[in-house]
Amino acid sequence: MNFAILFGGNSYEHEISIVSAVVLKKILKTNLVFIFCDEERKFYLIPSEEMNSKTFSTQAYKKQKELILKHKGFYVKNFIGESKIDIDCVINLIHGRDGEDGKIASLMEFFDINFIGPRLEASVLSFNKEFTKLYAKNVGIKTLDYSMLRKNCNDNFIPNFPCILKPSRLGSSIGISIVKNEKEFEYAKDVAFEFDTDIVIEEFKSGIKEYNLAGCMIGDEFIFSTIEEPKKKEFLDFDQKYLSFSGNNELIEADLNDTLKTKLKDNFKKIYNPLFKGALIRCDFFILNDEVYLNEINPNPGSLANYLFKDFNTILKKLAKNVKNENKIKINYNFLHSINGQKGKL
Amino acid sequence: MNFAILFGGNSYEHEISIVSAVVLKKILKTNLVFIFCDEERKFYLIPSEEMNSKTFSTQAYKKQKELILKHKGFYVKNFIGESKIDIDCVINLIHGRDGEDGKIASLMEFFDINFIGPRLEASVLSFNKEFTKLYAKNVGIKTLDYSMLRKNCNDNFIPNFPCILKPSRLGSSIGISIVKNEKEFEYAKDVAFEFDTDIVIEEFKSGIKEYNLAGCMIGDEFIFSTIEEPKKKEFLDFDQKYLSFSGNNELIEADLNDTLKTKLKDNFKKIYNPLFKGALIRCDFFILNDEVYLNEINPNPGSLANYLFKDFNTILKKLAKNVKNENKIKINYNFLHSINGQKGKL
Repeated sequence: MNFAILFGGNSYEHEISIVSAVVLKKILKTNLVFIFCDEERKFYLIPSEEMNSKTFSTQAYKKQKELILKHKGFYVKNFIGESKIDIDCVINLIHGRDGEDGKIASLMEFFDINFIGPRLEASVLSFNKEFTKLYAKNVGIKTLDYSMLRKNCNDNFIPNFPCILKPSRLGSSIGISIVKNEKEFEYAKDVAFEFDTDIVIEEFKSGIKEYNLAGCMIGDEFIFSTIEEPKKKEFLDFDQKYLSFSGNNELIEADLNDTLKTKLKDNFKKIYNPLFKGALIRCDFFILNDEVYLNEINPNPGSLANYLFKDFNTILKKLAKNVKNENKIKINYNFLHSINGQKGKL
Repeated sequence: MNFAILFGGNSYEHEISIVSAVVLKKILKTNLVFIFCDEERKFYLIPSEEMNSKTFSTQAYKKQKELILKHKGFYVKNFIGESKIDIDCVINLIHGRDGEDGKIASLMEFFDINFIGPRLEASVLSFNKEFTKLYAKNVGIKTLDYSMLRKNCNDNFIPNFPCILKPSRLGSSIGISIVKNEKEFEYAKDVAFEFDTDIVIEEFKSGIKEYNLAGCMIGDEFIFSTIEEPKKKEFLDFDQKYLSFSGNNELIEADLNDTLKTKLKDNFKKIYNPLFKGALIRCDFFILNDEVYLNEINPNPGSLANYLFKDFNTILKKLAKNVKNENKIKINYNFLHSINGQKGKL
């Protein structure tokens, strides 16, 4: 099976995506093609031996072949015109904007290319933390209470302290602040509004336990990862979160009783099915007084959370064989024929 | 100003979109380029004089020039290589799937092309009637009570009669049935499940009044259309709804008192701002006991609801000058440089 790893994107997590792709190169035992989406959203075919951070940070990637995305695949120009890159399944590994907001899902569906990753609706509902709250409630999943701040509105709103501010549409802890008083709040608002027009504010619960569970559906069957209790200071910052992608640390299943483990998995199932079919996602949950709360959905987790799975290669290949794009709609022009019959003048 | 009308798409409303484009050709007084997206999602440049239904129903469009969509525009091959079509703003006139589900929004944003039409989040929330209900509630707008039917679930669910069944993701009355008893219900379910995996069921209120209001925001100002009370039998079917695009009938403002007119406009504003910025949309409302309920949002209404406006050409040009794509994110590679400094081995 030929996988293409699609990474980069015009995203605050562009560089994280590069790290993610370099890690997956080491992990995946199959034919891999690397497709880089640069800042300008041009696509480049990166030879395997050039898959290192300098290729990108020095912009040496621009010497590589540019690809054109169109009907059924990515194409490269050559002396006979152009040829299609041989790909069975694209892994959408663009984090944040472009990859997780629905654009890549749209491009893949539109041009009819098999891919692993969240579909259009799943992307939009998980990328925006406010919509995630609405979705979670709709499928019967608890989230923490919250307020919304809108740019140029809510001027006099003062939350309870301590609280946590999160830009609605960013992952990887970017723009997030924990604040303890009004002065910190004003500064944190400015920071978050640098990234987004909408801010989610939640009460900050300092002792809260967080648990990460990744998984996917293959056919009717759920495949779950180990449940991880991520190590953290107050909360994970950007560097901490991602320099551990390759899972060098030994993985230890979180210390939870079976009832709570089952609760986490049941919550995951309600979130995943059917909206996230085709993706391998990671859900980050809180547990508070034995109740499970969804914190966030990562529909393209860093390096696809490979370090949480015991047999990642097998799972990914099975998932790839199982992904489905939309059914094509057959156009028969009966309606236009009927208009022509009636009026003959459109 | 050069407008491109983008129409067609792999959608149940593909043919409606062709009608919509032919009508707009007659209405718009400006330079127009016609870009047809065929069943296979290939793009063709259609000369103005070929803009009639036979070009499409006979597939004669395939003799026209194919276009490639990429960075910053649509390109046509020629003897010097390829050249970009001169377009200031694309009008997304694809109805239903592709046009209203977020795919075209994604393509335009990704390739950085100015366009009139709903953005990605707006598309996903208005295309799926269930999500529209969640969104409406979130911004304080009433909708009728409803239940959801899922394919292969809810086997024993029996609604109150009479009720109306709507596939979640289709416009133009396709797949919609009003049913009065269990036998009709079973048949209507099969019909709706032909089109979608999810069905919205609402109580059918036979005397309910419907009002359509179209509009857009230009800068901070709202532009509203005339409020229309659409003529209907029990409800509008496919043919009725669309053969009247060109507004041959004289437009009469709905007979409503000023309080209710203001209520409709206030509801429209809450729905539109800011999610639908960049689009000219039509909201279809019910009024029941002087209360306004949202029925549905049409983010790409047929022929952009031109027949509801007195000075459609001016509005559209102003809107086109006002549309904004996402801000570009500048990638600085500081993070990768820091990794290189630390480890030198990624």
